[in-house]
Amino acid sequence: MSKTHKIAIVGGDGTGPEVVAEGVKVLKAAGERGNISYEFVEFPLGGENYMKTGDLLTQETLDSLKTMDAIYLGAIGHPDVKPGILEKGILLDLRFSLDQYINLRPVKLYEGVDTPLKDKGPEDIDFVVVRENTEGLYAGAGGVLKKGTLDEVAVQESINTRKGAERCIRYAFEYCQKRNNKKGKKVTLCGKTNVLTFAFDLWERVFYEVAKEYPDIEADYAHVDATCMWMVKNPEWFDVIVTDNMFGDIITDLGAMIQGGMGIAAGGNINPEGVSMFEPIGGSAPKYTGMGIINPIAAIGAGQIMLDTLGETEAASWIEQGIIKVLRDDLKDLGAGKMGFSTSEVGDLIADFV
Amino acid sequence: MSKTHKIAIVGGDGTGPEVVAEGVKVLKAAGERGNISYEFVEFPLGGENYMKTGDLLTQETLDSLKTMDAIYLGAIGHPDVKPGILEKGILLDLRFSLDQYINLRPVKLYEGVDTPLKDKGPEDIDFVVVRENTEGLYAGAGGVLKKGTLDEVAVQESINTRKGAERCIRYAFEYCQKRNNKKGKKVTLCGKTNVLTFAFDLWERVFYEVAKEYPDIEADYAHVDATCMWMVKNPEWFDVIVTDNMFGDIITDLGAMIQGGMGIAAGGNINPEGVSMFEPIGGSAPKYTGMGIINPIAAIGAGQIMLDTLGETEAASWIEQGIIKVLRDDLKDLGAGKMGFSTSEVGDLIADFV
Ligand SMILES: CC(C)[C@H](C(=O)O)[C@@H](O)C(=O)O
Ligand SMILES: CC(C)[C@H](C(=O)O)[C@@H](O)C(=O)O
Repeated sequence: MSKTHKIAIVGGDGTGPEVVAEGVKVLKAAGERGNISYEFVEFPLGGENYMKTGDLLTQETLDSLKTMDAIYLGAIGHPDVKPGILEKGILLDLRFSLDQYINLRPVKLYEGVDTPLKDKGPEDIDFVVVRENTEGLYAGAGGVLKKGTLDEVAVQESINTRKGAERCIRYAFEYCQKRNNKKGKKVTLCGKTNVLTFAFDLWERVFYEVAKEYPDIEADYAHVDATCMWMVKNPEWFDVIVTDNMFGDIITDLGAMIQGGMGIAAGGNINPEGVSMFEPIGGSAPKYTGMGIINPIAAIGAGQIMLDTLGETEAASWIEQGIIKVLRDDLKDLGAGKMGFSTSEVGDLIADFV
Repeated sequence: MSKTHKIAIVGGDGTGPEVVAEGVKVLKAAGERGNISYEFVEFPLGGENYMKTGDLLTQETLDSLKTMDAIYLGAIGHPDVKPGILEKGILLDLRFSLDQYINLRPVKLYEGVDTPLKDKGPEDIDFVVVRENTEGLYAGAGGVLKKGTLDEVAVQESINTRKGAERCIRYAFEYCQKRNNKKGKKVTLCGKTNVLTFAFDLWERVFYEVAKEYPDIEADYAHVDATCMWMVKNPEWFDVIVTDNMFGDIITDLGAMIQGGMGIAAGGNINPEGVSMFEPIGGSAPKYTGMGIINPIAAIGAGQIMLDTLGETEAASWIEQGIIKVLRDDLKDLGAGKMGFSTSEVGDLIADFV
């Protein structure tokens, strides 16, 4: 008998609800085929809601979210809300409050998708970034002295715990072990050991300690600056990259770009023992709202990662096959309004395939 | 009457001395043509020297360096020295002790040079990164608690002063103003205001305050993650980018890659009121030492930036023209040993042109 997955739907702002609707369409199609049932519950979180109610993430909402199996997110961001408010008040608060300590970002170039890199194809761009998602410079720690004077000093602190680094590194090795890829298995720690001698001394020690438990996986290290260079020049060198929160933020966006940009890239904020959240990487694109021209593939890909994380690996693979097929055979281009299909037509194409 | 420039030569390790020798050859050629005289003084700094003497940067060496007009550096790095020692003990110590608060990194794709980016040519890749070079996460501030236990916590602090941010931002606007480029003038602050709310609140306030003094320069902002994306997708959007030390480290290496890699990229560690240091971006490449196959163009480019910073703008432009000519007409490829010429032949070609 199949289990019912309780999924929180947070369409959010701008084009978020449109793309999530397509994702839900595809999830339902996969559910029908695979006899998976869902209970979808909508949550009105986001900038729109904040403007109306003054609420960011209330305790009540958080408590309800904790009863769900997963959160499916569109986009949060509103042109009339000061930058930082929604990010800290909703997105980061969710990650922290639900202890979603892994940010998982597959970087995979699908056939038919254009990468800005020369001479690189789908066989070259296929790796995964495991980003620590609750610590480091994202802790919000720091302060300011003599603000507004010529003597002002602002301090921002990166806080790294052994526990936080270890669970993230372990996740990366476990993920690498079960990852189905043709290359040799390798986990690369991306850091800056030669300068951030406190933070990455901890990371490096824990990394090589955990690595010993996985003798069949190569343990490699690259400075963050070098990592960015190789991502552009030799992305085929990477299999799984593990890194801290800030460096992860940077390299996953670079990764999104080399796999074809915001219309494609998706990720998960994962608490393996709790409630995880899945999202397309793109923003709320307010100026395109309601026009039906935004590519929903990233949102559909987020749904795929969600099913995979929920243990529905077969259904997830159907969605991936649908994405592969539609990207290869149907879509022309990924720029807004240039796909040759509307947002919901793309959803239909994939749902039909599934 | 021309002034004699006192130049400290720090060949350093591995292939450093070879490439610097070519740079000196070219500097001399430019000196002959432009009636510029130099006094070159060699300093045996580096990993090799450290292994022999146990000295990193001694007070005595530092005092002598302070009497020079500029430092011309090859590369510092030795396979037998633990990572971090030479970086902190020599490179960063020099930057800090000589208060070289600007790291200047032109990102320019020359004709004939291969970029890993599709559909991008010399007209698209031509910007400059102004990186703060004495503060931020490079301050070395932080600590570790309960080291080696399961409760270990490691803290790394980014320290940002109003003075440090302001002088760097001001340098960026001044540089932009005098920069000879075809595009509209723009300075982009690269930061992470939505997460690093202490550090980049300071940076952002100071940025827009200084920007007011330059009404003919557009003041723009981009998050660091977005900056990396655009550098790969739309590098033509940038003119001058100003950023903190850590983000600068990352984006300048990404920049080096899109302009053709380590054989090309050069930079300056600049104290406009003191002693500055100029270097090719590449490492010491120990395994190629003495083989004469390393491209010296980056080192020659560092010499060009040095002359420019010393006020010898005309001579600097001759060197640049030489680099342009040789890259366009003579060099085949930039990989080690694939240039079609030896290290010293490339130096000769450019010196002859100059
Ligand atoms: C919106 C922002 C707070 C967030 C981050 O910096 O983590 C985003 O860039 C991401 O990568 O999910
Ligand atoms: C060698 C290292 C300390 C240095 C840095 O991180 O600044 C290098 O990467 C650079 O960019 O000059």
